[in-house]
Amino acid sequence: MAKGAHLKLYTYFRSSAAYRVRIALNLKGLTPEMVPVHLVRGGGEQRQPAFLALNPQGLVPALEDEGHVLTQSLAIIEYLDETHPVPPLLPGDPAGRARVRAIAQSIACEIHPLNNLRVLGYLTGTLGVTDAQKHAWCRHWVQTGFAALEARLATDPATGRYCHGEAPTLADCLLVPQLFNARRFEVDLAPYPTLCRIEAACLALDAFVAAAPERQADAA
Amino acid sequence: MAKGAHLKLYTYFRSSAAYRVRIALNLKGLTPEMVPVHLVRGGGEQRQPAFLALNPQGLVPALEDEGHVLTQSLAIIEYLDETHPVPPLLPGDPAGRARVRAIAQSIACEIHPLNNLRVLGYLTGTLGVTDAQKHAWCRHWVQTGFAALEARLATDPATGRYCHGEAPTLADCLLVPQLFNARRFEVDLAPYPTLCRIEAACLALDAFVAAAPERQADAA
Repeated sequence: MAKGAHLKLYTYFRSSAAYRVRIALNLKGLTPEMVPVHLVRGGGEQRQPAFLALNPQGLVPALEDEGHVLTQSLAIIEYLDETHPVPPLLPGDPAGRARVRAIAQSIACEIHPLNNLRVLGYLTGTLGVTDAQKHAWCRHWVQTGFAALEARLATDPATGRYCHGEAPTLADCLLVPQLFNARRFEVDLAPYPTLCRIEAACLALDAFVAAAPERQADAA
Repeated sequence: MAKGAHLKLYTYFRSSAAYRVRIALNLKGLTPEMVPVHLVRGGGEQRQPAFLALNPQGLVPALEDEGHVLTQSLAIIEYLDETHPVPPLLPGDPAGRARVRAIAQSIACEIHPLNNLRVLGYLTGTLGVTDAQKHAWCRHWVQTGFAALEARLATDPATGRYCHGEAPTLADCLLVPQLFNARRFEVDLAPYPTLCRIEAACLALDAFVAAAPERQADAA
């Protein structure tokens, strides 16, 4: 049996939260069963009773491990790191771990929540903003978050080939999907050379490449 | 010297992210130096060069520990838990830790980011939404997130007197400030009896009471 075959990942190819977890699974060499949940088709499979019984939040990703259902991408990745410690996705020292978690959370708590499908749906549906205003909103939050992250990573000696030192961590699992989203929103990435350099280092690794949205079975 | 006196917390009385960290510090019995950063006065002290040099994200809270500056409330609380392990704010088992982190992140990544000052400023300033629309937006995201959280906590046997079992955890550090915010947005809390019951259990503890916005020196 392949390592990780007892795990089930509920995923959607374009969800950047699912993309983060796919990278972490690949870095750990785990190959769970992939269960696609289509977020758009039929009003969203994540809102149907079968999926809500599993995850009342109605969000992907969710990871099932022998009856336990885990939610929230960062919590899932930390769980994978605790249950499959090699290679580690967090540094060994508390200050290093805090730095990696803070980088990850600056994306997960400051950028991504503002640009997901349900928020954009509320902007255009309930508030009646135009498509141009919606795209400007997306770009604004990516640019605000990336400017702060670039300032931090460019000047901090703890930054290495990756966000933290010379091996990929939780922070890189977050950065690469957010850059993918930024391109979808047509954000000019020239002001963020450090982020782009780290992304290129990540995309030299199979674990990151194989996790990309267009490489998933449900992308068809 | 009081335990934790070597720490400096950059805080704003009404920031719910700072409120979370204040609860965690109190639960650990740590009394850092409190440095108020006023988020409104003078266009926002968090946008001034002195603070940006410390934290390029321009967000509170930030925790300074002997030259290290830590950011992002969840990363700060996990750091405090690793460096001052008693009493623990995360359970001992990976599945329990994942559950506590997921509850915390369902607030930190799904509810709070949509309702903070800079987002509301963009809605009213750039998008020109009315005050009524702004309040409906705030209530919508709190209600969506709380409905999912109530469904989860009400039915899960791992829920106890607190979000997870019989002692406060990281999850409770997030829940109490979000309920405080919900009342400011005049959200009807009747549909969330489990959240309110857990809040009452927390507010029976001095650590939670002393962390409240109105109890801070900068609240005047």
